[in-house]
Amino acid sequence: MTELENTLDEFPKLTLDQAFVLLEQQDYSQLQLLFEQALPGQLADILEAMPPKERKKLWDLVPEAQGAETLTFLNDEVRNSLVVEMPTENLVATAEQMDVNDLADMIEELPGHIRQSIEENLSDEIRECLETSLSFEEGTAGRLMSLDVITVRNDVTLEVVLRYLKLHKDLPDYTDGLMVIDREGFYQGKILLNKVLTHDQDTLVKDVMTQNQAILATTDERNVALFFEQSHFVSAAVVDENNLLLGRITMDDVIHILRAESDHALMGREGLNEEEDLFAPVISSTKRRTVWLGINLVTAFLAAWVIGLYADTLEKIVALAVLMPVVASMGGIAGSQTLTLTIRGLALDQITSGNRSWLVRKEIMIGFINGLLWALVVALIAWLWFQDAGISLIIGAAIVINLIAAAASGIAIPLILQRLNIDPALSGAVILTTVTDVVGFMSFLGLATYFLL
Amino acid sequence: MTELENTLDEFPKLTLDQAFVLLEQQDYSQLQLLFEQALPGQLADILEAMPPKERKKLWDLVPEAQGAETLTFLNDEVRNSLVVEMPTENLVATAEQMDVNDLADMIEELPGHIRQSIEENLSDEIRECLETSLSFEEGTAGRLMSLDVITVRNDVTLEVVLRYLKLHKDLPDYTDGLMVIDREGFYQGKILLNKVLTHDQDTLVKDVMTQNQAILATTDERNVALFFEQSHFVSAAVVDENNLLLGRITMDDVIHILRAESDHALMGREGLNEEEDLFAPVISSTKRRTVWLGINLVTAFLAAWVIGLYADTLEKIVALAVLMPVVASMGGIAGSQTLTLTIRGLALDQITSGNRSWLVRKEIMIGFINGLLWALVVALIAWLWFQDAGISLIIGAAIVINLIAAAASGIAIPLILQRLNIDPALSGAVILTTVTDVVGFMSFLGLATYFLL
Repeated sequence: MTELENTLDEFPKLTLDQAFVLLEQQDYSQLQLLFEQALPGQLADILEAMPPKERKKLWDLVPEAQGAETLTFLNDEVRNSLVVEMPTENLVATAEQMDVNDLADMIEELPGHIRQSIEENLSDEIRECLETSLSFEEGTAGRLMSLDVITVRNDVTLEVVLRYLKLHKDLPDYTDGLMVIDREGFYQGKILLNKVLTHDQDTLVKDVMTQNQAILATTDERNVALFFEQSHFVSAAVVDENNLLLGRITMDDVIHILRAESDHALMGREGLNEEEDLFAPVISSTKRRTVWLGINLVTAFLAAWVIGLYADTLEKIVALAVLMPVVASMGGIAGSQTLTLTIRGLALDQITSGNRSWLVRKEIMIGFINGLLWALVVALIAWLWFQDAGISLIIGAAIVINLIAAAASGIAIPLILQRLNIDPALSGAVILTTVTDVVGFMSFLGLATYFLL
Repeated sequence: MTELENTLDEFPKLTLDQAFVLLEQQDYSQLQLLFEQALPGQLADILEAMPPKERKKLWDLVPEAQGAETLTFLNDEVRNSLVVEMPTENLVATAEQMDVNDLADMIEELPGHIRQSIEENLSDEIRECLETSLSFEEGTAGRLMSLDVITVRNDVTLEVVLRYLKLHKDLPDYTDGLMVIDREGFYQGKILLNKVLTHDQDTLVKDVMTQNQAILATTDERNVALFFEQSHFVSAAVVDENNLLLGRITMDDVIHILRAESDHALMGREGLNEEEDLFAPVISSTKRRTVWLGINLVTAFLAAWVIGLYADTLEKIVALAVLMPVVASMGGIAGSQTLTLTIRGLALDQITSGNRSWLVRKEIMIGFINGLLWALVVALIAWLWFQDAGISLIIGAAIVINLIAAAASGIAIPLILQRLNIDPALSGAVILTTVTDVVGFMSFLGLATYFLL
């Protein structure tokens, strides 16, 4: 191997293609060789990108040493599909190799009887850790934390710390420092490895440790991610309400939170689950998407019902039927822009009572200006098309009305949903489109009925 | 301060609210005190959440020591608005405190004359580093990397390394190890700090270093992020094509990439720029959104034009005008689901020639099944509403056709756009909706014209 091959360039795409080629050639020994050199995260990406049959084949080729960690990188649905077919003893052995927080996440998603048979066969020590982890709600720091913390007391010298570290040989990944506790186990601070390296051996821990913030076990994981983004920590201590050290959270957890958050925001608005397997069987995919189409159908018929109210008008002036989607569509687009900005602002905690009214005024102002501008353009095109001043005036007015309504609902809907504890990323867009459709059709056809008939 | 106050719980929201309260009370000394204790990332979040006037006031209260880093956390637009009003000497002093990669990002966005006056006044050393950084394209590893790398030679003992480290006292953030080079500066591997701590002092560096992958300076930042996600690195070396060590990338860069990617995916589909200031003045916000509304207007009129082709039919059967949005809307929703899954699969490099046809077949199958199912429901409702078997049959058929077209375009559009080097996250949704609108109206009204007139 030359030095150049040792560097990284677009490696994941290459490996996925390779995997497909080798699968087709049935060159399983080469695949196995490749897998042994791969990182668990890479293996997970390849497995996720496989149709079910090929995935099972590849999973059998994943070396035992990488199995546990590979599972933790997979999304829930893919992981479940592999785990339910594993023999119990393999599964228990794999479970025992996992970080306890990953194990907790996995086990909660498994069918009851598999979960039970794993829990029964775990070593007592691991089962206890698992119970601790499961005692915290999903999405909290307590659930995220791992328990593999190396602690030192605050009243010892660096020499003692060094001797203690030599016993360990390999420190857990992402160990930038050791957690410092007092005699009773209460968290005192963190001593960075580089302080241990660069200070004299007779220095006391408490004199060089950093008294940085710890994370409460009940803290929401979104705030954990924000905390890591804003600080320069690689790892941080998790404590209970009495400041007792419970575990630690590391920066890789934050990357997972961010990825999950981003997937959730993107997929949620289409009624998709971010843990969904892209290659799930047709039937289970269909079922999930059906629900979303059903919800949308209700709103579509609501819009149709509004149009139906003006059936007589439409019968007399068919141009209205031709133009009405333009009004609804412009409102939908403008509203989605405001909605997206608002949802993002809420997710970043950037919208609060102090700036809310400023923002509402700004968005409505933008809606009004854009409404006026595009009302002129649309009115002009409508006039060129149908040569009817009345229709032109009315479509212009309807667009101004709908764009203002769109801006107001784009900001009000997520704020209201959040107050009701409903995730605006999930249902915001459906509700918004319903509003802009209804307001759009009603204002356009309503004005036409009033003025043109 | 009790121990409990030292822990983290929902701190960002609190501080933003506090900031607004203190601003209103004009308690600037308290604000300044609060700012001194805050992390630069927190300060940036607060500044971003301020209307322009309040933001300027607060920026003046940010302590000099935190100014440079706070700027690096701000989005381009907010940063620019603050920087252009800073006196040159302050600006140069701030620039010299920044990491050179952050400086490169900032300087590229600034108006020419400000950029020039900064560059002219930088120290020679920093200017040279800046030029190196700017010589790499935005979005590559070379641009991301920082140059603050501590290197050791592969043929020295750990004792030498330790002595060398003691000279440094404080290592740069995210230093989990030192980069190992040979006499000529070529990258050899990394020695983890914990190896330095836990091995005997007479061990040679080359015997305990890890030969892990380095990142080529030309690597795309998306692949850099994937690499960090899959590995367990806190920092990684960046090398040129000859394996010469150039710099290092750290895990916090990855968090920024992920955040930016996620914002881009979410905002791009609404024609919004992820670097946009939520509190930008009305006029500049309006301008940007106007463009997107204009693009959408073209597609809306395309749909209207299709409807216009069937004006005669609509005049005779007004029920068609009432029901037609249902067909278009169901197609739009189903298509968006497929589109979102495809775009995400492409972003994660999970779609390739090996699984593409499997995926196309799956999505079209889902479209067909969901089409049949909802065609029945819609046909039934249409029949109950209008008591016309012909209309019922035709709307059912149109829905099946549109849902299959939606699935096919949901997967084809992003694949084609990617081949054309157009970001599917930006224009995919507009194109898709155009297709589902046109197919929806055309199939419904076309079939009706053919069979019912």
